[in-house]
Amino acid sequence: AMTKTAGCCQGCLHYVFDYETPKTLVIPSIRVGFVFRFTQFLVVLYVVGYVCVVQKAYQETDSVLSTVTTKVKGFAFTNTSDADPRFWDVADYVVPPQGGDSFFVLTNMVVTPQQTQSRCPELPNPSTSCVDDCDCIEGYSDPRGNGILTGLCENYSTTVKTCEVISWCPLEIDTKLPEHALLAAAENFTVLIKNSITYPKFNVHRRNILPHINSSYLKRCEFNRTTDPDCPIFRLKHIVSEAGEEFQDMAVKGGILGIIIDWSCDLDWWARKCNPQYSFRRLDNKNPANNVAPGFNFRFAKYYKTPDGEETRTLIKAYGIRFDVVVHGTAGKFGIVPTVVNLGAALTFLKNKHKITHLNEVADTETVSDKLNVFTRDYQGLIFSIFPFSSRLFFCQTADKIHSF
Amino acid sequence: AMTKTAGCCQGCLHYVFDYETPKTLVIPSIRVGFVFRFTQFLVVLYVVGYVCVVQKAYQETDSVLSTVTTKVKGFAFTNTSDADPRFWDVADYVVPPQGGDSFFVLTNMVVTPQQTQSRCPELPNPSTSCVDDCDCIEGYSDPRGNGILTGLCENYSTTVKTCEVISWCPLEIDTKLPEHALLAAAENFTVLIKNSITYPKFNVHRRNILPHINSSYLKRCEFNRTTDPDCPIFRLKHIVSEAGEEFQDMAVKGGILGIIIDWSCDLDWWARKCNPQYSFRRLDNKNPANNVAPGFNFRFAKYYKTPDGEETRTLIKAYGIRFDVVVHGTAGKFGIVPTVVNLGAALTFLKNKHKITHLNEVADTETVSDKLNVFTRDYQGLIFSIFPFSSRLFFCQTADKIHSF
Amino acid sequence: AMTKTAGCCQGCLHYVFDYETPKTLVIPSIRVGFVFRFTQFLVVLYVVGYVCVVQKAYQETDSVLSTVTTKVKGFAFTNTSDADPRFWDVADYVVPPQGGDSFFVLTNMVVTPQQTQSRCPELPNPSTSCVDDCDCIEGYSDPRGNGILTGLCENYSTTVKTCEVISWCPLEIDTKLPEHALLAAAENFTVLIKNSITYPKFNVHRRNILPHINSSYLKRCEFNRTTDPDCPIFRLKHIVSEAGEEFQDMAVKGGILGIIIDWSCDLDWWARKCNPQYSFRRLDNKNPANNVAPGFNFRFAKYYKTPDGEETRTLIKAYGIRFDVVVHGTAGKFGIVPTVVNLGAALTFLKNKHKITHLNEVADTETVSDKLNVFTRDYQGLIFSIFPFSSRLFFCQTADKIHSF
Repeated sequence: AMTKTAGCCQGCLHYVFDYETPKTLVIPSIRVGFVFRFTQFLVVLYVVGYVCVVQKAYQETDSVLSTVTTKVKGFAFTNTSDADPRFWDVADYVVPPQGGDSFFVLTNMVVTPQQTQSRCPELPNPSTSCVDDCDCIEGYSDPRGNGILTGLCENYSTTVKTCEVISWCPLEIDTKLPEHALLAAAENFTVLIKNSITYPKFNVHRRNILPHINSSYLKRCEFNRTTDPDCPIFRLKHIVSEAGEEFQDMAVKGGILGIIIDWSCDLDWWARKCNPQYSFRRLDNKNPANNVAPGFNFRFAKYYKTPDGEETRTLIKAYGIRFDVVVHGTAGKFGIVPTVVNLGAALTFLKNKHKITHLNEVADTETVSDKLNVFTRDYQGLIFSIFPFSSRLFFCQTADKIHSF
Repeated sequence: AMTKTAGCCQGCLHYVFDYETPKTLVIPSIRVGFVFRFTQFLVVLYVVGYVCVVQKAYQETDSVLSTVTTKVKGFAFTNTSDADPRFWDVADYVVPPQGGDSFFVLTNMVVTPQQTQSRCPELPNPSTSCVDDCDCIEGYSDPRGNGILTGLCENYSTTVKTCEVISWCPLEIDTKLPEHALLAAAENFTVLIKNSITYPKFNVHRRNILPHINSSYLKRCEFNRTTDPDCPIFRLKHIVSEAGEEFQDMAVKGGILGIIIDWSCDLDWWARKCNPQYSFRRLDNKNPANNVAPGFNFRFAKYYKTPDGEETRTLIKAYGIRFDVVVHGTAGKFGIVPTVVNLGAALTFLKNKHKITHLNEVADTETVSDKLNVFTRDYQGLIFSIFPFSSRLFFCQTADKIHSF
Repeated sequence: AMTKTAGCCQGCLHYVFDYETPKTLVIPSIRVGFVFRFTQFLVVLYVVGYVCVVQKAYQETDSVLSTVTTKVKGFAFTNTSDADPRFWDVADYVVPPQGGDSFFVLTNMVVTPQQTQSRCPELPNPSTSCVDDCDCIEGYSDPRGNGILTGLCENYSTTVKTCEVISWCPLEIDTKLPEHALLAAAENFTVLIKNSITYPKFNVHRRNILPHINSSYLKRCEFNRTTDPDCPIFRLKHIVSEAGEEFQDMAVKGGILGIIIDWSCDLDWWARKCNPQYSFRRLDNKNPANNVAPGFNFRFAKYYKTPDGEETRTLIKAYGIRFDVVVHGTAGKFGIVPTVVNLGAALTFLKNKHKITHLNEVADTETVSDKLNVFTRDYQGLIFSIFPFSSRLFFCQTADKIHSF
């Protein structure tokens, strides 16, 4: 037994430190070698050229965390026939006021002042017109209507009678929307966008106000792709036109405009670059076939109280442009794991020559059939590893012939 | 020297274009071959079946950028004993008004009208009740209280005396919350959700209003999983019930409801599909053990001025359902890098047979021990590559025996 | 032919079930074996130590979906010379009121009450001061100004004359910002943050109110990294100081503060942990060189109507701290695909010994040159697979010599 264990341990040592290597055989054929080298070359080309250069697959990535503040500047004066002349500043036309990453600039509206909780005849349309009270079911409320029926049939005008409803009266008539935007001047408003980002995994912090920008420049600058690409102050008209839209058109019915800030970064020391790229795109559908509620609008109200304590409100159907600041980006930095994974995986294809079997004995003869065989075998090497069986059968003819040597 | 370099160059050429291949040996044993093929088969099965079909690991992916607009429709009429009859429309019950991806629908409330900056006795509770002024420290403010103590002890009612506070008076008594939702009718409100998404990497743009939908359909349709799965108009009651909740229950104390739109896309030409999938889930905890501030509510105020310029406000503690539209999704498209990586990596396991060493000489004998050996060696092949040392030692017994041939 | 096909099929069977293995040769040299084992050891070390333990590359990941509600508590009393004493509660100082994932706490302000649509002289500065009406172009509006010029030159004070403008008058004079925050008491306000998250791929749902927390604890607790790390109630002052800022400084000009909740989870059964980690960071730039609009502020207005129906407003330039709750995180769970990919890829490097060619015949001799060769060959093995040609040429000297055996 003693000797046995000794023998074993020796054997073990043997196994641990013996160096194994397959016996190989060289086929000194330029042609064959070339074919083999060429396939290798393709793999190397793929690894170096595509994986490394194009895809940067050696990097590990992280996606961006961002915060945005926006501040709109500018004022307008409206003087239309159907409303009093009025002066507009930021507090009037920006909703919501706290400059977040999504802000709405009022450009057009339908105002219905002096609404009170009361009763008034419905707006005339086939479903609301009536002849006498019998046509109006008390308490019924038509989803497409504006209130709850009182059961009475009243004169809407000298010619039309409609059912009376309980609602905020007078009712809003949103058909008379100005076809020229009320706040056309909004196109000259400017917005300052402050954006700070973080790549938590790499502990990288950046701002869209770059270090080289000084405050005097910021006071007067305005974003322009060619002259001022780093200025974070944007003229609304410029944003819209860069998105391929016409401000005045968009201002009438409203819309949604994306201010996309791309923070894609390459953080490797040999390619330090991490600057914001601005782009602009209309996010809602301009004029869709299925045109339900085109553009962008919403209703809000200002509530007042009359001296005698009655509540009144001014209903505003606000049309305008909502600007969404969308920040996205991916940071890449050299990582050992992705490198090894991609390299390693690619290398498997470098190995695909170990597929010639017992043909070796004849391989250094230079017959045509032989060259064919070697070639097929090389080819076989690649696809074989993917479909072992099929390819084998495909090649069995040749192989069989050779086998019967 | 001349000849030397010439020799070298020749040698180099030799090396560059010689074709190498390991000498191999065939063991014509069905059993052994089968074992080997079977392991190969498993790998292939894994690659084709799982990696490609199930995991789609050959795709590169991108995550979604999205914008959402929502528009709620509907009105209600409340006529309760403790408040005047009132008509409610969108401008009254939706907060905030600008239809973003998160909107709150008011369903229940505690209204405290006519609040002014003044003094009034605290609401009675152990910490606020007092006998005389000595019990009320002037200027002290109890975090759980409603104002700053004036130092006086006043009659809250004929029976109870409490410390007087400076605050918005009268104080809100939020214990008398209606146990039936005030705006029960909210369950029939509908919301139109417009959602545009982008996969920047693949430059793919989509809307949740699909091309085949026309506006006449949009005017009358309502989302229903079976009959109208593509209609972007949702009845609030339907949303809540799909989330497994009862609207009227939820309406009393409020809650948060997620409208989840899944935009997972397979953009490969052989499987073009990229449609939104709607699902609904309650996002807050229904009735947690640790029930602090259950449901969802917040306070806001409407500010008025009396004719004599004094500021008054109506404080509203708003209970209701906040609907969060959560858009997520991943697009996949065939990419050469992930394909090669996954395939290549899997292939390494195809190679795990190159592990038989100097047993070859005996491998074509058909003894039992031998078959065992071959099998163990095959097995060894797989785990060996992971733990070279251990497995070696494990097999050293056998190996040693054989080695001593 | 008959026999031929039979022969073929036999050949096929042969090919399908024969077991192939390369003839190998053992070099019983401890030194050489050691070199080879050492390289193997490094690979294994990398796979086990780094890929598995550090990088957890065997996991597939998913990123978090989250919803947040916030509820601020606290009140303040301001009693300054230039304004009436006033009591502030949540409805007064939190904007917007509906507790979402971003809320603003008012700490300082410039109030301009009783503004009406009218005319008043501009604030004096070089561009607005005038001598007579000729200096004021009617209808012109200076972007840096406050309104549209009427063309008149009026007395701003007894000493200064400035152009008159149409605007909301009186104009806001935002230079007289209190240098001590008006709502200094805001530092003692508390905020309850409720955060529910989901990892859709793994169908995992979590809340930041952990199961072991009971409501009595929640009523009195306050977040503290050491004593109460799981309490979701935060004192504003504590948040700010953890972010390395001084509340009272920040309160004067305002700023943006990130409450970052990290939900990184390891969902494998052997390492179940999925708890929120809170951290706090100032997101805007404290005192940048390019100091345009430092801090954080915005303007909003409360609109009133005078008894005679004229609209007046109180303009508030609100300075304060915006708290953004930023939720991020990645969940990892064992996945077969990433495991195989990473393992497989790493294994390719284990194979890099199959590189010795026709030196085998001499390999068991123990000459110095030989050992060198073996070593170089091993080394060659690794780099060769990456740059086949170059290394070959590099080694051709040696090789050539040997080749000429």
